[in-house]
Amino acid sequence: MAEYLIAPSILSADFARLGEEVDNVLAAGADIVHFDVMDNHYVPNLTIGPMVCSALRKHGVTAPIDVHLMVDPVDRLIVDFAEAGASFITFHPDASTHVDRSLQMIRDAGCKSGLVFNPHMSLDALKYVMDKVDMILLMSVNPGFGGQSFIPATLDKLLEARALIDESGFDIRLEIDGGVSPKNIAEIAAAGADTFVAGSAIFNQPDYAAVIQQMRSELATVG
Amino acid sequence: MAEYLIAPSILSADFARLGEEVDNVLAAGADIVHFDVMDNHYVPNLTIGPMVCSALRKHGVTAPIDVHLMVDPVDRLIVDFAEAGASFITFHPDASTHVDRSLQMIRDAGCKSGLVFNPHMSLDALKYVMDKVDMILLMSVNPGFGGQSFIPATLDKLLEARALIDESGFDIRLEIDGGVSPKNIAEIAAAGADTFVAGSAIFNQPDYAAVIQQMRSELATVG
Amino acid sequence: MAEYLIAPSILSADFARLGEEVDNVLAAGADIVHFDVMDNHYVPNLTIGPMVCSALRKHGVTAPIDVHLMVDPVDRLIVDFAEAGASFITFHPDASTHVDRSLQMIRDAGCKSGLVFNPHMSLDALKYVMDKVDMILLMSVNPGFGGQSFIPATLDKLLEARALIDESGFDIRLEIDGGVSPKNIAEIAAAGADTFVAGSAIFNQPDYAAVIQQMRSELATVG
Amino acid sequence: MAEYLIAPSILSADFARLGEEVDNVLAAGADIVHFDVMDNHYVPNLTIGPMVCSALRKHGVTAPIDVHLMVDPVDRLIVDFAEAGASFITFHPDASTHVDRSLQMIRDAGCKSGLVFNPHMSLDALKYVMDKVDMILLMSVNPGFGGQSFIPATLDKLLEARALIDESGFDIRLEIDGGVSPKNIAEIAAAGADTFVAGSAIFNQPDYAAVIQQMRSELATVG
Amino acid sequence: MAEYLIAPSILSADFARLGEEVDNVLAAGADIVHFDVMDNHYVPNLTIGPMVCSALRKHGVTAPIDVHLMVDPVDRLIVDFAEAGASFITFHPDASTHVDRSLQMIRDAGCKSGLVFNPHMSLDALKYVMDKVDMILLMSVNPGFGGQSFIPATLDKLLEARALIDESGFDIRLEIDGGVSPKNIAEIAAAGADTFVAGSAIFNQPDYAAVIQQMRSELATVG
Amino acid sequence: MAEYLIAPSILSADFARLGEEVDNVLAAGADIVHFDVMDNHYVPNLTIGPMVCSALRKHGVTAPIDVHLMVDPVDRLIVDFAEAGASFITFHPDASTHVDRSLQMIRDAGCKSGLVFNPHMSLDALKYVMDKVDMILLMSVNPGFGGQSFIPATLDKLLEARALIDESGFDIRLEIDGGVSPKNIAEIAAAGADTFVAGSAIFNQPDYAAVIQQMRSELATVG
Repeated sequence: MAEYLIAPSILSADFARLGEEVDNVLAAGADIVHFDVMDNHYVPNLTIGPMVCSALRKHGVTAPIDVHLMVDPVDRLIVDFAEAGASFITFHPDASTHVDRSLQMIRDAGCKSGLVFNPHMSLDALKYVMDKVDMILLMSVNPGFGGQSFIPATLDKLLEARALIDESGFDIRLEIDGGVSPKNIAEIAAAGADTFVAGSAIFNQPDYAAVIQQMRSELATVG
Repeated sequence: MAEYLIAPSILSADFARLGEEVDNVLAAGADIVHFDVMDNHYVPNLTIGPMVCSALRKHGVTAPIDVHLMVDPVDRLIVDFAEAGASFITFHPDASTHVDRSLQMIRDAGCKSGLVFNPHMSLDALKYVMDKVDMILLMSVNPGFGGQSFIPATLDKLLEARALIDESGFDIRLEIDGGVSPKNIAEIAAAGADTFVAGSAIFNQPDYAAVIQQMRSELATVG
Repeated sequence: MAEYLIAPSILSADFARLGEEVDNVLAAGADIVHFDVMDNHYVPNLTIGPMVCSALRKHGVTAPIDVHLMVDPVDRLIVDFAEAGASFITFHPDASTHVDRSLQMIRDAGCKSGLVFNPHMSLDALKYVMDKVDMILLMSVNPGFGGQSFIPATLDKLLEARALIDESGFDIRLEIDGGVSPKNIAEIAAAGADTFVAGSAIFNQPDYAAVIQQMRSELATVG
Repeated sequence: MAEYLIAPSILSADFARLGEEVDNVLAAGADIVHFDVMDNHYVPNLTIGPMVCSALRKHGVTAPIDVHLMVDPVDRLIVDFAEAGASFITFHPDASTHVDRSLQMIRDAGCKSGLVFNPHMSLDALKYVMDKVDMILLMSVNPGFGGQSFIPATLDKLLEARALIDESGFDIRLEIDGGVSPKNIAEIAAAGADTFVAGSAIFNQPDYAAVIQQMRSELATVG
Repeated sequence: MAEYLIAPSILSADFARLGEEVDNVLAAGADIVHFDVMDNHYVPNLTIGPMVCSALRKHGVTAPIDVHLMVDPVDRLIVDFAEAGASFITFHPDASTHVDRSLQMIRDAGCKSGLVFNPHMSLDALKYVMDKVDMILLMSVNPGFGGQSFIPATLDKLLEARALIDESGFDIRLEIDGGVSPKNIAEIAAAGADTFVAGSAIFNQPDYAAVIQQMRSELATVG
Repeated sequence: MAEYLIAPSILSADFARLGEEVDNVLAAGADIVHFDVMDNHYVPNLTIGPMVCSALRKHGVTAPIDVHLMVDPVDRLIVDFAEAGASFITFHPDASTHVDRSLQMIRDAGCKSGLVFNPHMSLDALKYVMDKVDMILLMSVNPGFGGQSFIPATLDKLLEARALIDESGFDIRLEIDGGVSPKNIAEIAAAGADTFVAGSAIFNQPDYAAVIQQMRSELATVG
């Protein structure tokens, strides 16, 4: 994959014409589709499930779909999303008693696997499963709640996660989600992130390509 | 409202172009939009939440949206769906400790309220709240599981529910959901139903108007 | 016991001088002390536990203390309240899988036992345990939520409960809780209640004796 | 099947030599093997699971194995016990949100299905699923707790259940579990039971055949 | 604030005259009121809720009230206690999925926030939220269970917590709760604690001032 | 105890003649009996409970019985297994809110206590309770799921656990469970394990003594 991936979160897209929205944002230069799943238990909101993922595949979306499970428990939805065409499936380690097993289930289903860390969570759960993750996602806001801005302490955590990845020698993407915009994307990339979720920063703009281009310009300054 | 209402379940629509699908099915003669919400706890599936409802309203849908909550607990989502433009909000009495209160919350939020009964559930929960429900929904399949056909014992339960409604003197719709098709809709109406949810029976057909017209023709025979 | 019992709910008393409040309300003519226990799970509030009950006993309260458990699960608190000096312990049947057993636990601990019914709940759970209850408590508001008025459908339920008690031949008190005041107490008694919980109707008045006397005058009209 | 079935509960057998115990009790005249499954959630105890059932089949037991699930949730264990060789699988309706579906799962797996009712539970859950049950089990003690005796109110419930079965026209066994002994078995049969679980009453006796024979003699007096 | 704060736990006070007890202990030299909230879920006991806190404020208590939530979940009670006049609100990180968010909720409500650590818990949850806590509370006994003595391993944990606070540069109090008495308070202070919860050590003595004075004398030796 | 202990897991034994199986495997040279308890909540399976443990003691088993609780919650079963004759009782720290207390309960009941770590779990929970554990059990497969092989990352974790034990100076056994066989037992022992659970590796062989002897020969090479 390319060094930096832009991952628009479709939670901010227009659900009445989701296929078109996804087509447009990909045509505008996005790399992967970020798909936020909330179950009203792990977080206080309920969003979209496997049927919507499946509909995007039937609609013709071929880009990677990056499913972030904000759900508890995770195992049944892992199976459902794998069947629905997910490319990445990530979950929160505090939502699974059997993290090692859930990661294996994702890979066994032919998807790429990952763990997500809430703002306060330490990265401890990674230690013994680095060989089983393809992506680490750090939340830079609290998931499931609106109107938040990027939590600065996440920059230090990105540095730590980057160090863990480099030490491990494995090919693992480092994704960031929450309050990412053209204004802070360079700083975030400098701290080690290579995959950038952005929702309203993209979908609330009239010209998706312009904002994605702006993000790439900023990223180009990181070197 | 008209005596008989056809309520297509958008779970069977194409989620990639949901606004268009809803426009089409309403143009084809449907009366209300049935909106199935599953949370992976009350039922083993996760579907769509308030954001999707809200998107339909922003898209221009003015028909009633009939939200069936297959979730536990129910209170927070009641609030969210009322804000998202729901017209009816129905929930399962076994998913709320405070059924009377939850029904009041729905009406206080300006929506019409209702209770839903799983195939095996008795109608006992209605007894002391008949003055607080605008709709009774009987499940004629087990919610959350695919590939089922209409459970015949539901016909007797429809007769009972109809008798309760008539005795009460209140204006309460009697809705049926599960395995409804042009073939059995007349029999179901004869047992007392006046609102008919149909998913694949409509959306899996090339011509929505034709199947809805066929249903209406069948209903016309009931008298 | 006397035919009619007035049971002030100490939730409306001043918790900074609870012993004195209880002394005063008993001196003002109240018969028993109603003690509302909420655990933030069965209802969305947390109130007072066994230690407070125990403190009232140590303070010298000898009147019956009538503990209403709005908690789930119930068994451990049954034991704790029995040790803390409770006279009656009532719980909601939907909060115990083993209702028969929980009722037996209360009696085995030397207390009087009872079941409580939320406004929408049918009285079905009583059928096979009438020989094990000393009190039936009907909620005439939804427990755990403030600012509600007496739900009229409870009057019919009182008639039903009274009939069940009379048929059974057992000595069972019929208690009502929610929105009871001098204005409606006669009507409520006429429907069959013999034990009346009142919170703010008593404690929000400057003269407890006056309001209790007013209630008794109203009750005297029932015959 | 024969009119009356004796179903020794292996909870009272010697688990160190369970195959032999089951062989002996069947040789002594027992008809079916009653298998009590507790999960420390539905009841406060944990007993035995599918592996033990499977071991009995491998050991050569060909008599029906009657699995009583005192567990919540039920669906996964239904599948596991069907694979492990269960003949009957019964569960508590209050432990499944989707009772109709769970009953269907049991039959689809090739087993006979049933519902179990705790002492205080009404038989309401049966109403719309009488065509899907092969057995009704009434608990005459509270499951999961030791040292209890037969609850007399169960006799009336047996009469009701028998009436429901007779009305339905279906071939449904009526089983009783808790405090059954040669002393009361005739009275219990007279109330309508045809299948009798007995644990310590059989296994705590030196001569299993003697006690089973004594039960049959008593049953012969019922006519 | 003063370097050392004495925080009597009102769990050991006389609940029949709580206002007077609190007045007395403050007059005797206590600095803040420690308020232990248990919900019978996070711990096996139920104590006192927001109404009791509110009553203390109405009674005229102006000293800081330090609310320790031994509850799960925490968010609704955070709101309730803020409205009831709490000064500090602390919770256990293992009782909230969204620790960063819950801490923000406390501060947004105008209170001081904190995290509490059970005896075996590592301090990991602090790492990324040091800028959002005003207090760290270390449990030196297991909360919710009576009759325990100070767990010695807590002394090392105090040293660690003190080092974290000093490194952070933030103004964070370090509180200790469990088995604190005049005998060990100096040693505990030497390990880094600056706020001392004491229940029976104070309230079980006839002269509150004497024991608080004794604690202060011991603390004076720490330097 | 001897340096190396072989602990056959009776989950792989024949449950129809468990006493004999245990006698045989002990006669074949096994040191302790490993007893796997699953409750269908902490893991998706249900196995055997206290009654089976008790039966082994009544059968005459005098060897240590090493009970591994894969259950949540743990406290009630700790009490039950202590009464049933358990020697060791180990549980997962993520299944108890009050780990320190649960460990004390085990020792207070006269048993040896321990903590178990799932494959992905860090050893953090040990830090402040090293003085309260007699055994540390590392899972080298995911518990509750069949057909897995030894997870290599466990070797590093064994080294860490061994270092913690050595540093602590306490007498703590280091047990390993999952995919252990004569082929890898030497490597596992070299990483620090001293107690080896083996299920099918022993019970699926015709000659238990042969495979245990083979394990001991391999262990002898470790030095």
